[in-house]
Amino acid sequence: MPDLMFPTVAVVGTGVIGRSWIRVFARAGCKVRVYDHDPAQARRARDWVEADTALDVAEGFLTHDARARTLAAITLHDELTEALAGAGFVQESGPENLAAKRAIYAAMDKAAAAGAILSSSTSALDIEKIAGDLPGAARAVMAHPCNPPHIVPVVEMLGTKATTPATLRAACDFLAQVGQKPVVLNFFVTGFLLNRIQAAVVREAFLLVESGVADAEAVDATIKDGLALRWAFIGCFGANHLNADGGIEAYFQRYAQTYRDMIGDLSSEPPSFAPKVLAQVARECGFKAGTENVRAFAQWRDRMILRLKDQKAKHPRP
Amino acid sequence: MPDLMFPTVAVVGTGVIGRSWIRVFARAGCKVRVYDHDPAQARRARDWVEADTALDVAEGFLTHDARARTLAAITLHDELTEALAGAGFVQESGPENLAAKRAIYAAMDKAAAAGAILSSSTSALDIEKIAGDLPGAARAVMAHPCNPPHIVPVVEMLGTKATTPATLRAACDFLAQVGQKPVVLNFFVTGFLLNRIQAAVVREAFLLVESGVADAEAVDATIKDGLALRWAFIGCFGANHLNADGGIEAYFQRYAQTYRDMIGDLSSEPPSFAPKVLAQVARECGFKAGTENVRAFAQWRDRMILRLKDQKAKHPRP
Repeated sequence: MPDLMFPTVAVVGTGVIGRSWIRVFARAGCKVRVYDHDPAQARRARDWVEADTALDVAEGFLTHDARARTLAAITLHDELTEALAGAGFVQESGPENLAAKRAIYAAMDKAAAAGAILSSSTSALDIEKIAGDLPGAARAVMAHPCNPPHIVPVVEMLGTKATTPATLRAACDFLAQVGQKPVVLNFFVTGFLLNRIQAAVVREAFLLVESGVADAEAVDATIKDGLALRWAFIGCFGANHLNADGGIEAYFQRYAQTYRDMIGDLSSEPPSFAPKVLAQVARECGFKAGTENVRAFAQWRDRMILRLKDQKAKHPRP
Repeated sequence: MPDLMFPTVAVVGTGVIGRSWIRVFARAGCKVRVYDHDPAQARRARDWVEADTALDVAEGFLTHDARARTLAAITLHDELTEALAGAGFVQESGPENLAAKRAIYAAMDKAAAAGAILSSSTSALDIEKIAGDLPGAARAVMAHPCNPPHIVPVVEMLGTKATTPATLRAACDFLAQVGQKPVVLNFFVTGFLLNRIQAAVVREAFLLVESGVADAEAVDATIKDGLALRWAFIGCFGANHLNADGGIEAYFQRYAQTYRDMIGDLSSEPPSFAPKVLAQVARECGFKAGTENVRAFAQWRDRMILRLKDQKAKHPRP
């Protein structure tokens, strides 16, 4: 394994996303310096890492030694300046609010070592608006993960207008080195790539339920036991490519008009998301609310994705 | 294992979908009587089953005995009437053309045993228009699979106006018994469930590439290494459910407006599907056209999905 590009990183903000980033970096062998404006929240994040990695060990997903190394790599710091000391890469996962992001970026820009990359988990804001007017605008990047990043690898990347290609590339290379899959946006759009595609699916899935075409369990099964089985391995374009012997170009020569007709029939209105529809979806899909139920379901999801990633690693695409 | 509801089935039409149905039924232990108006096509389908199951054996996905039983279950018949003799369930996978479907359904309705279910793989047509005016309209159902059905379990189900609930239920129960995942539509809509959701993703994925937001590899990675890793296990609604401790109802109480805004920003226009965009997608995703390349990629997909299904069967959702 080559040397880590940034052996010391800082994680700023330790909610659900931040605590998962801690595991990404610690697992890869980085020293992880953790800061949260609420030190109790940072302690809860470390407690979660301890508890969740203990389960991983119990279920054979992690060795005792690997867990010990992960936990030893984490230090909590009550001051931002102290947390950022010596960190070559800073991953910020604070509240999704422009004023809050701007304030934390201004503080990080003052406190971080020269040349350290300042990376934001923002899921909705433009990194240009967060950091474009800072002295350190050139070292600011967005690195928006899919929840939870220690399980799901994709990370959406975008710089400010000032960010140099070399800095964006270094951020991508480092995130790839720690096991993520960075993908680069050329400019800002609402929802980036991932949430736009998710919104397209959410819209159609809810509209099918709300209009009474089928129940929610049926709609979700077309994804879970249908579309996503292909998408998880070959993507959307890959699914098109494999539907014709001549590949994707032949496929759309034949079916472009069918798609145009189908797209023309899709509603452009949002679903209602009315409480009774949400209750119906939860009931028909057998979802149980409550922290414990959600946690058990999420843990099962995480384990299943780990197994799938393991299979992907063992059997690379031809 | 309980007795098969229909120990003898007929497969009518043996293209890519029909030949895969042969494997579904034969694998489950049914006798499979095969008819194609072109007997050479039926022979090619059987040759494909022979070759592909040989590969399955070589790679440890199938035992020699199971393969032998599958092959022994298949008989080819030059006459429709002969193929349908004794079949309690008929799966039709002919050309996707209303006149052709109506003709084959009229012939099947005459030839099939009393009470046999006549099931169509149609991916676009309304079963009411195919079979609603036949004497046997009450025994006609749509059973639209996701390609290929012997790998991907979901099947979309719909009856004619005359189809009795008991017949539709029997068709669903039988398909579940042979390993599929039937989902019931309450009425016809263009694209059914699966192709509508697929079209929503195809539209947004192509628009992101065509508008230059990111390259095709990046867009597909947000699905392959992001969204679909969750969807394959928990579906779209499940992904919403697990994004808040309070479950899907709490999630949309908080994010419904975010989704409305994002949906409002999505284009309702279809992509161009222009040749140069298709060529770009193929290049950026590293897709190679040509029968051999497409076949090797598809085979890898099938194997990966089999492994994933195996993991799902071993580790049921909590």
